[in-house]
Amino acid sequence: MKTPGQPFSNYGQPSAQQRGVVRWISANHDVPGNGVSWTPLHELEGIVTPSGLHFERHHNGVPQIPIDQHRLLVHGEVKRALTFSMADLARYPLRSQILFIECGGNSNAGWHRLPQQTRAGYLHGLASCSEWAGVPLALLLDEAGADPAASWLLAEGADAAAVQISLPMAKARKDCLLALYQNGERIRPENGYPLRLIVPGWEGVLNIKWLRRLEVAREPVMARNETARYTELQPSGKARMFTFVMQAKSLITWPSPGHRLDGRGVYEIRGLAWSGLGRIRSVDLSTDGGAHWGPAQLQEPVLPMAFTRFRALWDWSGAPAVLKSRATDETGAVQPERAALIAERGRHGYFHYNAIVCWQVDEDGEVSHVYR
Amino acid sequence: MKTPGQPFSNYGQPSAQQRGVVRWISANHDVPGNGVSWTPLHELEGIVTPSGLHFERHHNGVPQIPIDQHRLLVHGEVKRALTFSMADLARYPLRSQILFIECGGNSNAGWHRLPQQTRAGYLHGLASCSEWAGVPLALLLDEAGADPAASWLLAEGADAAAVQISLPMAKARKDCLLALYQNGERIRPENGYPLRLIVPGWEGVLNIKWLRRLEVAREPVMARNETARYTELQPSGKARMFTFVMQAKSLITWPSPGHRLDGRGVYEIRGLAWSGLGRIRSVDLSTDGGAHWGPAQLQEPVLPMAFTRFRALWDWSGAPAVLKSRATDETGAVQPERAALIAERGRHGYFHYNAIVCWQVDEDGEVSHVYR
Repeated sequence: MKTPGQPFSNYGQPSAQQRGVVRWISANHDVPGNGVSWTPLHELEGIVTPSGLHFERHHNGVPQIPIDQHRLLVHGEVKRALTFSMADLARYPLRSQILFIECGGNSNAGWHRLPQQTRAGYLHGLASCSEWAGVPLALLLDEAGADPAASWLLAEGADAAAVQISLPMAKARKDCLLALYQNGERIRPENGYPLRLIVPGWEGVLNIKWLRRLEVAREPVMARNETARYTELQPSGKARMFTFVMQAKSLITWPSPGHRLDGRGVYEIRGLAWSGLGRIRSVDLSTDGGAHWGPAQLQEPVLPMAFTRFRALWDWSGAPAVLKSRATDETGAVQPERAALIAERGRHGYFHYNAIVCWQVDEDGEVSHVYR
Repeated sequence: MKTPGQPFSNYGQPSAQQRGVVRWISANHDVPGNGVSWTPLHELEGIVTPSGLHFERHHNGVPQIPIDQHRLLVHGEVKRALTFSMADLARYPLRSQILFIECGGNSNAGWHRLPQQTRAGYLHGLASCSEWAGVPLALLLDEAGADPAASWLLAEGADAAAVQISLPMAKARKDCLLALYQNGERIRPENGYPLRLIVPGWEGVLNIKWLRRLEVAREPVMARNETARYTELQPSGKARMFTFVMQAKSLITWPSPGHRLDGRGVYEIRGLAWSGLGRIRSVDLSTDGGAHWGPAQLQEPVLPMAFTRFRALWDWSGAPAVLKSRATDETGAVQPERAALIAERGRHGYFHYNAIVCWQVDEDGEVSHVYR
């Protein structure tokens, strides 16, 4: 306190002491710019994910797009094809909403026979929550005169992979956004600058980044992502396809692997819950592997299709314990136990793993990932 | 789209094309690290301010504090003085809440005889809104055994200026936080890393950064800030002192000076409203300098002591217009016209300027600051 501090800055950064709080990059080295980076949920608090730590999923890197040159084309089964500059879009009425985005493949380490031992965010952190602001998609579909008989919408990104997806028109009209802003400022490049399609509560892949084209169509496009990847054969012999909604889920972020309890006594268990179907109604907690359950406190605000922070006090006796959290959403959907999920979906699932997560606290306060 | 994009990053940054969206620094060159930096509210959307753009007010620069060495002392009229490491504090139950912080001196250019011509954020951007998470202060006051007869609390920062303030104990117990996190991650250095006192809805100066000491007392400390600065003589002959609450206020962020309307037609007027007394109940808009008013739409969520985003469509005829917004909060408090504020507070005010702001749109779509 005896010398003046550092000067003002025109754009702030985290403390250098927090350099360990970063996205964990897991890249495919065979394809340039292909892979994911994970949000360190085990280090964070509240419901907002800082934009610098929002998870990434890229197929061919992050394109550098001049905002003044970028255009959005709306065409296909429409009365009039339209092209919009980003300035054109900013002229429309906007809507802002706090929403989670979760990759359909998030948490898929849960399908492994053995519980993977890493930080909570590196197992479940392909999920983040931001305030997105942009133009309600329905406005542009109306302006283009989309054919009411055309029930699908193709969306395409301007990255080198030209990622494409198909979206039911009913969802597009209901609540999708053409987002220009994330957490108050223009979207960061890795999150889709200058324009991202936001599909509230549905699979991350649908939230097309660097959005360049929307084509109104009578059939889904059957893009590589939705046929080679997001279609899954189940034990019943039926294949799951277009499994859009991210189901009710929760995660204890503290304590979680890598944290350590400092002896017996009272601790606050903290976590996040979310559902693509709406608001979280309740989160139940167990500290004995699921034999007994009690309610956690939900931190206001509890918003639809957003992270909800939950908290509960726990008086730890010092004996080994297994912590579980179980989310229920406003539709009554309940997060399943892992055995139930596998019974339904089989041993070789990849997407939409939303089973209850178990953290074991050992006598010495170390936390590890277990299946129970 | 013909070449792979940029690689993954472990901590993201805004696009280089957005380098103009920065805090505007207004420093006092006679005292090192003394001054303010302004949030560019005219560039932002939604209600969350990105942490990198949260306004700053420093008295002697930004101290670099090792989180492991920092301590909070709670002492004075208590049964037991206590010292807390940051790890100790993280062990307590936390609360997270989206809250605005506004400097008591924000918007004080409004006292000038002539309307200052600059961007909206550089007149009114000593106000920002974040999700803060930390320990409810009441818990530590109880643990220390604060004397019920001691109705004041001194808070002191660990910067070179050792900024001090006095806070009524009733407010300290009601809803104040000892914040460790801002917008999900650890607080940025310039916003108080590693610990900030958060006083919801009250003057920014009370939200002591780099918090090091809380002293329970029977009288206010009468620190330099609250005697030499925040005490103001009024026309009535009475002085205003301990004027804690930031009153109902609103600001049209778009269009505002520096923006330009591109000809007659429909535009969305966008802005922010907030009140230190609770939720915003309504925002009224006028496009004719206050002769006629109509309601704006409030964007959900409308949270107590947080920014609320408002929107309204306006069909501009192309003729000169004067835009005004007027906030009403849940207590019924109404944002005053400038003439009414000056009649009450005089010509030489400095703090708590919350009058209605007027933007004039000229025939050519240029926007300027006027008094009406």
